[in-house]
Amino acid sequence: MAIVRPKEAYHERATQEMGKHLLTPKWNLRQKMALACRILADEGHESALAGQITARGEKPGTYWMLSFGLGFDEAQARNIVLCDDDLNLLEGDGMVNPSNRFHLWIYRHRPQVNAIIHTHPPYISALSLLGEKLVAAHMDTSMFHDDCAFLPEWPGPPIGDEEGKLIHEALGNKRSILLAHHGQLCACTTIEEAAVLSVFIERAARMQLLARAVGPIKQLKPEAAKEAHDYRLEPKSVGATFHYFARRVLRKTSEVLE
Amino acid sequence: MAIVRPKEAYHERATQEMGKHLLTPKWNLRQKMALACRILADEGHESALAGQITARGEKPGTYWMLSFGLGFDEAQARNIVLCDDDLNLLEGDGMVNPSNRFHLWIYRHRPQVNAIIHTHPPYISALSLLGEKLVAAHMDTSMFHDDCAFLPEWPGPPIGDEEGKLIHEALGNKRSILLAHHGQLCACTTIEEAAVLSVFIERAARMQLLARAVGPIKQLKPEAAKEAHDYRLEPKSVGATFHYFARRVLRKTSEVLE
Amino acid sequence: MAIVRPKEAYHERATQEMGKHLLTPKWNLRQKMALACRILADEGHESALAGQITARGEKPGTYWMLSFGLGFDEAQARNIVLCDDDLNLLEGDGMVNPSNRFHLWIYRHRPQVNAIIHTHPPYISALSLLGEKLVAAHMDTSMFHDDCAFLPEWPGPPIGDEEGKLIHEALGNKRSILLAHHGQLCACTTIEEAAVLSVFIERAARMQLLARAVGPIKQLKPEAAKEAHDYRLEPKSVGATFHYFARRVLRKTSEVLE
Amino acid sequence: MAIVRPKEAYHERATQEMGKHLLTPKWNLRQKMALACRILADEGHESALAGQITARGEKPGTYWMLSFGLGFDEAQARNIVLCDDDLNLLEGDGMVNPSNRFHLWIYRHRPQVNAIIHTHPPYISALSLLGEKLVAAHMDTSMFHDDCAFLPEWPGPPIGDEEGKLIHEALGNKRSILLAHHGQLCACTTIEEAAVLSVFIERAARMQLLARAVGPIKQLKPEAAKEAHDYRLEPKSVGATFHYFARRVLRKTSEVLE
Repeated sequence: MAIVRPKEAYHERATQEMGKHLLTPKWNLRQKMALACRILADEGHESALAGQITARGEKPGTYWMLSFGLGFDEAQARNIVLCDDDLNLLEGDGMVNPSNRFHLWIYRHRPQVNAIIHTHPPYISALSLLGEKLVAAHMDTSMFHDDCAFLPEWPGPPIGDEEGKLIHEALGNKRSILLAHHGQLCACTTIEEAAVLSVFIERAARMQLLARAVGPIKQLKPEAAKEAHDYRLEPKSVGATFHYFARRVLRKTSEVLE
Repeated sequence: MAIVRPKEAYHERATQEMGKHLLTPKWNLRQKMALACRILADEGHESALAGQITARGEKPGTYWMLSFGLGFDEAQARNIVLCDDDLNLLEGDGMVNPSNRFHLWIYRHRPQVNAIIHTHPPYISALSLLGEKLVAAHMDTSMFHDDCAFLPEWPGPPIGDEEGKLIHEALGNKRSILLAHHGQLCACTTIEEAAVLSVFIERAARMQLLARAVGPIKQLKPEAAKEAHDYRLEPKSVGATFHYFARRVLRKTSEVLE
Repeated sequence: MAIVRPKEAYHERATQEMGKHLLTPKWNLRQKMALACRILADEGHESALAGQITARGEKPGTYWMLSFGLGFDEAQARNIVLCDDDLNLLEGDGMVNPSNRFHLWIYRHRPQVNAIIHTHPPYISALSLLGEKLVAAHMDTSMFHDDCAFLPEWPGPPIGDEEGKLIHEALGNKRSILLAHHGQLCACTTIEEAAVLSVFIERAARMQLLARAVGPIKQLKPEAAKEAHDYRLEPKSVGATFHYFARRVLRKTSEVLE
Repeated sequence: MAIVRPKEAYHERATQEMGKHLLTPKWNLRQKMALACRILADEGHESALAGQITARGEKPGTYWMLSFGLGFDEAQARNIVLCDDDLNLLEGDGMVNPSNRFHLWIYRHRPQVNAIIHTHPPYISALSLLGEKLVAAHMDTSMFHDDCAFLPEWPGPPIGDEEGKLIHEALGNKRSILLAHHGQLCACTTIEEAAVLSVFIERAARMQLLARAVGPIKQLKPEAAKEAHDYRLEPKSVGATFHYFARRVLRKTSEVLE
């Protein structure tokens, strides 16, 4: 006969076990940024040179980013350069990406945000033509439940300040945003979280398009969605997922860490 | 001029020939579980760390499973650990997967079930948003004719006992189930069968979504579907299919068997 | 100023040039059959062990076929076995595929047919659930204009004589057929033609599903379709296409020819 | 506090930085044509031997093209042959592609056009069955805003002069055209531009089909679309994109340059 225990008991036990068994890798920030690039490249996020990744530097008002002109599939730790809050190069050999200006607007207004990833992957791009919001109706995409904003207008190529203002205001306090005619952005506390959410927002868009071509999507019950949202975003879980994706990258090449 | 014989005569002859010609590999249970993981990874079943595979141990109340924190594409025989029916580790170097608790509910109520595979592959996931049942309208997916249950509600992350109760009750005596907002599960007499059904349930979902985006699906005649269901599930046939998929894995690497 | 000549003049010149420049490979029949298998594997035709390939032997009433239990991606020339018209093994080391019995019905009634390929690729399979005929509305799929039959019923697993009768009658004098709930079959004068048509019937199904998910397909004008049909099926053109696909296979491995 | 500057200031600064940092590779025309072929092969543009690439030679009335009978994935610089404006071979070891005659009509009427790429990729092919125009509603496909023509009729295999007349007239002064029942063509000032547009026209078709299977597409505002169109087509930007795609090819093999 089976013992039936409350769910909380299992939750606590799982958290303890994860703390013991899941390895925390010792990659530095630039290595994690380069790994995030490669993970997203493997997930098909490439739209030529359109992807962007940034993270706060240790010194306030400084930011790390992938040097302009490189694709995510080429990223290495040494291609991550440091700039100030007017996009002037401070450290590293490369070119500051002029399209990252709108990230600065988010960092200024969201002190908890330490990492931003912005991509134009194919399913998000297709979804962005429809005027529909992202739907978080699957357990694996529950991280976007009540946590994905929508910017229904497109202001033109976002290289200026107006676009930064528009995007950060639409984002508000959420972790992610679907940008009409454009792509997705995740603004998170860690690179790991931004990378994992970027992987799954594209998968969410894929599910949504496949399902919507057939008919309407059944919503999740809000309580279950909220529970799953929090469960999925636990740092241990996000870290284990990032580590797994990173191992896939590293099985192919270790040059990414250099 | 051709001789015309009844179909049964051909069926019997084919069964004899298969018995003579199709090799039965000598992999042990842990090796077969690791091969099943790799087969499903190659079929695109990955949804980060969400996939689960378990099998009954020789001693009653013991279960083998893939150690938590590993993806299916990383599985090796040595990563398969043994636990008791409260998920305490008995043998092997790794962490028992706390999400496998609901498998135990199925094993308790279905003595014929020796292996369970649960995944969140992309087409099943998309289909699971629609509130539609899986349709078995193709010869190659006839294994699901009258043999795929449907759980239309999602109870939140299935780490507790309530979820186990809900899922095993919805499964009933069928071999497989489509879980709304979640994924698929196959509960079978052998690992081979669970792996082959898991491959084909995802393909069935893919066919269904592609066809349903155009219009309604024409059903199979029940007698033909029943005949095909039984034909496809003959152990020799399932074994030959698993062996074929396993050879594809082994052409890339033999580390899976270690 | 450009000279304007009638289209026939260009057609004749092109035919002469092709005769001079396009190489005719010296593969034997078994090698071409193994290459055809690999080509179709690379095109995603795999549905476990469901694919079949057969060709007439030199002696009347004999047939070459891929040994049962092997996938198309494993085929080598030495796996092609010879059998008689009751599927008894005559030559080669392997097992006659009992599912090939319905091919014999086609060979008996279509003396011009020397090669048959039957597969269950994913888009054809999805299309086969809809009750729709294949639409040949693209230049590259014009080979199917008025040359693709449709069997709207599925008689159950085709291992007997009844199925052979049903399929060959539905095929009539056409080169190809869409089999509801099942797959596709191409019955051609050469292995090259059967392989090239099998590649393109799956692509035709893909185009059709993608387009039909949006709306109705605009038909080709019958005269243009007929002209393109004949142009595409010229043996030099079919041979050059097969040779190209075969080179792709051979860049990966030459074991297929052994 | 952030400084807010007009967008033009950032645009100018970005252009200067790009001039300093983005490398201009020293490939010759034949190498760039071979790279373009490989780029498009990697993007899935293959439809057997249907792809075509041509460029003006230095001497008026001469044209470089990929030798007939080779797929884009096989192209090397040495396979690019020179012909006159009646498709007679002038230089190189290979066969002039008789299907390229309609390119000559475009070169005659568009003196600014120096390179033409014509392919039948899968999403463009599917879109071409619908009678719909290409929709440029995404930032990354804005190059086609008011710059993609449509030929709604298909005149049969385009090997003659009539087809050349029809296609060049439909193209008019635009950079690209969607050819019903057939494929796409980009007629550009450089090989780089023709290659980059060919990559993105297929992606535009993919987005369009995915979105249209769900519902109508929201148009871009014309001013934003025009701004993005011009921004994307700046030679520095097109060159950086081509260079990036070329690096991906060159990571796999350098034989393409030989």
